[in-house]
Amino acid sequence: MTYCIGVQVDEGLVFLSDSRTNAGVDHVSTFRKMTFFEMPGERVLVLLSAGNLATSQAVTGLLRERVSSAKSSLLTVRTMFDAARIVGEAVRDVYQRDAAALKEHGIEFNPAFIIGGQIGGEAPRLFHVYSAGNFIETTADTRYFQIGESKYGKPIIDRVVKAETTLAQVAKCALISMDSTIRSNLSVGLPLDLAIVRRGTLAITLHRSIAAEDAYFKVIRDGWSESLRNAFHALPDPVIPS
Amino acid sequence: MTYCIGVQVDEGLVFLSDSRTNAGVDHVSTFRKMTFFEMPGERVLVLLSAGNLATSQAVTGLLRERVSSAKSSLLTVRTMFDAARIVGEAVRDVYQRDAAALKEHGIEFNPAFIIGGQIGGEAPRLFHVYSAGNFIETTADTRYFQIGESKYGKPIIDRVVKAETTLAQVAKCALISMDSTIRSNLSVGLPLDLAIVRRGTLAITLHRSIAAEDAYFKVIRDGWSESLRNAFHALPDPVIPS
Repeated sequence: MTYCIGVQVDEGLVFLSDSRTNAGVDHVSTFRKMTFFEMPGERVLVLLSAGNLATSQAVTGLLRERVSSAKSSLLTVRTMFDAARIVGEAVRDVYQRDAAALKEHGIEFNPAFIIGGQIGGEAPRLFHVYSAGNFIETTADTRYFQIGESKYGKPIIDRVVKAETTLAQVAKCALISMDSTIRSNLSVGLPLDLAIVRRGTLAITLHRSIAAEDAYFKVIRDGWSESLRNAFHALPDPVIPS
Repeated sequence: MTYCIGVQVDEGLVFLSDSRTNAGVDHVSTFRKMTFFEMPGERVLVLLSAGNLATSQAVTGLLRERVSSAKSSLLTVRTMFDAARIVGEAVRDVYQRDAAALKEHGIEFNPAFIIGGQIGGEAPRLFHVYSAGNFIETTADTRYFQIGESKYGKPIIDRVVKAETTLAQVAKCALISMDSTIRSNLSVGLPLDLAIVRRGTLAITLHRSIAAEDAYFKVIRDGWSESLRNAFHALPDPVIPS
């Protein structure tokens, strides 16, 4: 299982994922479940993937391959909407190739992707691409997408994230959300990848790989646990007959 | 969807459920998804149910019917282990009767139950009965069971509940867990039923129906939201390049 989250606020985009490492080439670099498609100053796209690893890697691999071989790719499309379409097409291509064999072996075709970023003069945008290759975009009401093991970490995001929340606050919130998920689901774990794309910079503003010894994450984990315990004890107990 | 939780601590048992109302008879009374089987001073059992309503009601109904008609019932068994077995048998009987027809209509046979209580000189015990009629009991490591929409409300329970947690604290924790679930899943809602069984009393120590206007629940909901917001803002933000 994986847990990935992408959040869009006025200041830009925040991405956080858990998981394993892959190698990267060219303008495309993969950090575990997070892949960057970047031409600094012109465009920056971040792809997060979840689901059966062979399938999500096949899609990510196809998208990277097409950067050098196809006429239209994530490094050439003119809008983020077209980028989401390109991801959806790659999902459908992998489905065409693999779905029958997977079904034969009783394996579900269940990849899920978050693709977000900014291209040229367009505003930053964020999409959730489903295993059927269709996709949805964030709205003023729904500013984030989660893929993988999403429920444990959802309440804190619902409580905190608003349009005006700063990128730093969103990153903090995403790390707390990830911490709650890691505590409840053993199959989600460190190291994490945190990426931030500030609106208008057309580049990865920050990418940080977070391992167990990361000092900031430790402050967040310990501080949040202590705050929750304090908050819990500060609330009045109900009266129970003895 | 439903959310029910049963917790066992040294002082006794706490049960919390959301959902709808049914009528009760005799020694058996049903409050929404919570049913009491009680002979004060001799035994007290609390049953929580989730899953397809027709199926879980069929099981609960069968258990109530057997109180007056069967030689062995929840009001006659000598141990909580036998009580869990009786619930499992009722699940299997309903499966025998309904599963084929449900399958025909593409409906899953997915009831889930929590049964807990205390009988005579035995210690309070808590069981989770699955749709196959088999069941598990709490251990020193796992002191609670959830059925239905369980993930949103799990982190706070994992952080708070220990053997020595008081019944009042457990009730508060269960209400916070329910609040997180209600906020994230529209299909879980008020009113709630909270029941507490203090060890050795062999009776329902407290049963409280909690509607939107319940003053204590409002204090918990508002207080928890505010505490989380304060805790969130008190933690340091990460440094993001501008």
